Amino acid sequence: DIGHSTNDIGKIEPDLARSFEFENKLLPLTWVVVRIDGCHFHRFSDVHEFEKPNDEKALKLMNSCAVAVLEEFQDIQFAYGVSDEYSFVLKKESELYKRQSSQIISAIASLFTSTYVIKWRDFFPHKELKYPPSFDGRAVCYPTYKILLDYLAWRQVDCHINNQYNTCFWMLVKSGKNKTQSQDYLKGTQTREKNELLSRQFGIEYNSLPIIFRMGSSVFRLKEAAAVENGVVSGKKLKLEGEVVVDHCNIIERCFWEEHPHILSYS
Amino acid sequence: DIGHSTNDIGKIEPDLARSFEFENKLLPLTWVVVRIDGCHFHRFSDVHEFEKPNDEKALKLMNSCAVAVLEEFQDIQFAYGVSDEYSFVLKKESELYKRQSSQIISAIASLFTSTYVIKWRDFFPHKELKYPPSFDGRAVCYPTYKILLDYLAWRQVDCHINNQYNTCFWMLVKSGKNKTQSQDYLKGTQTREKNELLSRQFGIEYNSLPIIFRMGSSVFRLKEAAAVENGVVSGKKLKLEGEVVVDHCNIIERCFWEEHPHILSYS
Amino acid sequence: DIGHSTNDIGKIEPDLARSFEFENKLLPLTWVVVRIDGCHFHRFSDVHEFEKPNDEKALKLMNSCAVAVLEEFQDIQFAYGVSDEYSFVLKKESELYKRQSSQIISAIASLFTSTYVIKWRDFFPHKELKYPPSFDGRAVCYPTYKILLDYLAWRQVDCHINNQYNTCFWMLVKSGKNKTQSQDYLKGTQTREKNELLSRQFGIEYNSLPIIFRMGSSVFRLKEAAAVENGVVSGKKLKLEGEVVVDHCNIIERCFWEEHPHILSYS
Amino acid sequence: DIGHSTNDIGKIEPDLARSFEFENKLLPLTWVVVRIDGCHFHRFSDVHEFEKPNDEKALKLMNSCAVAVLEEFQDIQFAYGVSDEYSFVLKKESELYKRQSSQIISAIASLFTSTYVIKWRDFFPHKELKYPPSFDGRAVCYPTYKILLDYLAWRQVDCHINNQYNTCFWMLVKSGKNKTQSQDYLKGTQTREKNELLSRQFGIEYNSLPIIFRMGSSVFRLKEAAAVENGVVSGKKLKLEGEVVVDHCNIIERCFWEEHPHILSYS
Repeated sequence: DIGHSTNDIGKIEPDLARSFEFENKLLPLTWVVVRIDGCHFHRFSDVHEFEKPNDEKALKLMNSCAVAVLEEFQDIQFAYGVSDEYSFVLKKESELYKRQSSQIISAIASLFTSTYVIKWRDFFPHKELKYPPSFDGRAVCYPTYKILLDYLAWRQVDCHINNQYNTCFWMLVKSGKNKTQSQDYLKGTQTREKNELLSRQFGIEYNSLPIIFRMGSSVFRLKEAAAVENGVVSGKKLKLEGEVVVDHCNIIERCFWEEHPHILSYS
Repeated sequence: DIGHSTNDIGKIEPDLARSFEFENKLLPLTWVVVRIDGCHFHRFSDVHEFEKPNDEKALKLMNSCAVAVLEEFQDIQFAYGVSDEYSFVLKKESELYKRQSSQIISAIASLFTSTYVIKWRDFFPHKELKYPPSFDGRAVCYPTYKILLDYLAWRQVDCHINNQYNTCFWMLVKSGKNKTQSQDYLKGTQTREKNELLSRQFGIEYNSLPIIFRMGSSVFRLKEAAAVENGVVSGKKLKLEGEVVVDHCNIIERCFWEEHPHILSYS
Repeated sequence: DIGHSTNDIGKIEPDLARSFEFENKLLPLTWVVVRIDGCHFHRFSDVHEFEKPNDEKALKLMNSCAVAVLEEFQDIQFAYGVSDEYSFVLKKESELYKRQSSQIISAIASLFTSTYVIKWRDFFPHKELKYPPSFDGRAVCYPTYKILLDYLAWRQVDCHINNQYNTCFWMLVKSGKNKTQSQDYLKGTQTREKNELLSRQFGIEYNSLPIIFRMGSSVFRLKEAAAVENGVVSGKKLKLEGEVVVDHCNIIERCFWEEHPHILSYS
Repeated sequence: DIGHSTNDIGKIEPDLARSFEFENKLLPLTWVVVRIDGCHFHRFSDVHEFEKPNDEKALKLMNSCAVAVLEEFQDIQFAYGVSDEYSFVLKKESELYKRQSSQIISAIASLFTSTYVIKWRDFFPHKELKYPPSFDGRAVCYPTYKILLDYLAWRQVDCHINNQYNTCFWMLVKSGKNKTQSQDYLKGTQTREKNELLSRQFGIEYNSLPIIFRMGSSVFRLKEAAAVENGVVSGKKLKLEGEVVVDHCNIIERCFWEEHPHILSYS
């Protein structure tokens, strides 16, 4: 009977147990980037038969989850996603969860995940979700605008490199090579050689591939009302000022940021 | 054209951007407790019309998510849940995610969340999930077995205190008092007085309330095959050695741990 | 015989013992401020009969230690000292000790301390050092220039407030009040009232007190050769470009920093 | 005039500047080991012409500083020193500096350093201290008694390995080889081969070398009064219960700890 046990509450010492909790505050006035990654998504994409090298529906599902995260957390100014990863940028002044790292990361990963499960049906109406997906996360503080943009550029460079490699790899596999042969074939090739391989052997102009594959996806709030592409069905849709949108812009070039200063605005 | 931009890769300095990532390793050879909490679950339980003071289906949904988490992560030895929180105990020697705090916490919170959404229908077949739930988490290291048991006892004491208070509060509300009056009525009352209130005024013997409300839920692996209560439908079910089960035991009393040394076994 | 024991080296597992060392890296590209404080210097100043409220020799000894620290660590751009504390500002880009917090702090505190003991004789030729002094330290990262200047201004404001209070307090004590009476007398008084007390009752114009008491001490490298006050003996001394000097400037006013941009120069 | 500036105190925002200070608490109920190392002591020992491979006076100066540290900090139960490093073990329950890592490390390093400078004359009465020595430090938490003893054993194994190597190296150098030749000669040799080299070529029985060189130095409090070796002059001295002493025992063997349970006593 726990009623009796609780006479022993004095012996329990919650203060002692609580004293082991450590602070994990992210440095104030720095941009916090929370990056989440799919756990074992190699297997997840196999089990759910995602198209290779890119499954457009799976990417759009990811984007729609990111939009939900920005709609929930006003302090997130920008997000960039590629493959099964998404980076969220919190504004410098954010006091979300008093900047406690663990809670910020887990709350974002958790909301992203539950949205993923709920919206699965919208993107894969004829495909059953076979087991619960999950995402892990981490946080990094960036003290300057310049290094924050470097981080985002790095992720987009990675998107480009991986997409080009994967496009070649899966074209080789589809053309009859096995996976090891395809890897060996590509070992040491440069950007130009890969583009030529795609062009000559498979008749694919790299730059004509869907922009979402080449550029990844950027998520942010509109400065003013605009007609933008609809995430799920095709066609354009009018979005209002402050609404969260998805775009596939070049965020490596500094001119994007110069032309859209409101996105990562700071004082 | 990003193909041209990537000629500028050398300017991006991924190493610099990466150098801002900090290690957040949990001290080796300590028990790691990851506790997750529902985000804004006061509102969530209102919107989904959870029964007050306890909704048995909602608790069983939580339990079934915790079971899924233990089934996925072999390093989690024990979990204890009450209300919208759940504590997961990783074994001392765990090298999950190389003990990186952020990833452990977010992966557990994320898997718990996606299971919650997927299993919602099993527990609430006639109730729609109106928006994506989320959980945040944190981690604490406990260096000794004794203080780990103190932590778990503290959570169960909290369960008891909150459940007794909430049972009284909601009986007063259901009997016609408004929320403020009910709070005032209970201010400063002791355990015995609350038990008497329930007994005299409402004919409720506290100890006859469902044990899941009074004790919370413990989740662990069976040492040997046994017939245990089924989580969803009523009745008993044979579970095998090593299978994860839910129980509602008194974990404040040290005898529980003495009788089940395999649960938190360590060298 | 340890020669035999070392046959057991395999059992020792240095890798395990080493795995408990945790990284404590200070965020890159932020200004690191290491502040050291005298341990139990209330007692130290009593035992060594420092003059109250300020002992000019003791302050100059502190300053000369700070100069030695800047001469040793090229990455320290600026230091500010008051009473028994000293703040050292490392340049943003510093990679001193790979930015490991513990080692930076302890190395600075240690060098400051040994210089203090060695130079004691220069400032107190007729006073014996009765026991080893010590200083503890801590580090803080500042991500922006503005907040770094706020930190330094805060320390100088503190210097001013403490000096004004202490000047009043010790004048009251010297005039016959005991310490409790003097405290009570000053309780709740404002800046203007304290200045008036000094002026009317003791004939002291606050602004005519030695500038080292009112402003604290700033330590930095000269941009170009100049004749500056000598730390120990009176008179001016020619210092070369890049030499470390002590000054008693107003660092609250932003104009100081605008006129000396080389001190905290950064890209 | 700073009197006017301080009208601007409201603009300074000390709370903001203070908010950047981060907690760096060492996990409660774990043994904290603070290890300090001489900064650039290779150069320091050259400049001060320390005897090679070991300078007994320099080691005894180190030991006497460690004794002073244990006399000041009651929470330090044990210390082990070799060459220019010293490890200090704080008792599990210590609340020194509220377990703030930076302050504990810096205060210990600082007190050790100032004692080193003050006592230099006692050990080197005819040698001038040419410049201020300094020590940096770090802290590690050990959650179990076993791993703490592993740490200490590791340091003593290191002492043995380094001493044996250095003894061979300097004998080779003294016999006419240059430093590179001596290094090459020793490359890949095992313990037994080095012992044979010393014995055959130089007539040195390793185990007859002074025990302080082979075992390093352990510092702890006496359980009961005893006559122990005097640190500075030769001969024995009566030390009382609780007094801090230096010994050169084998701390790799567990029997030492079993025979002296009071040293690292804990509950």
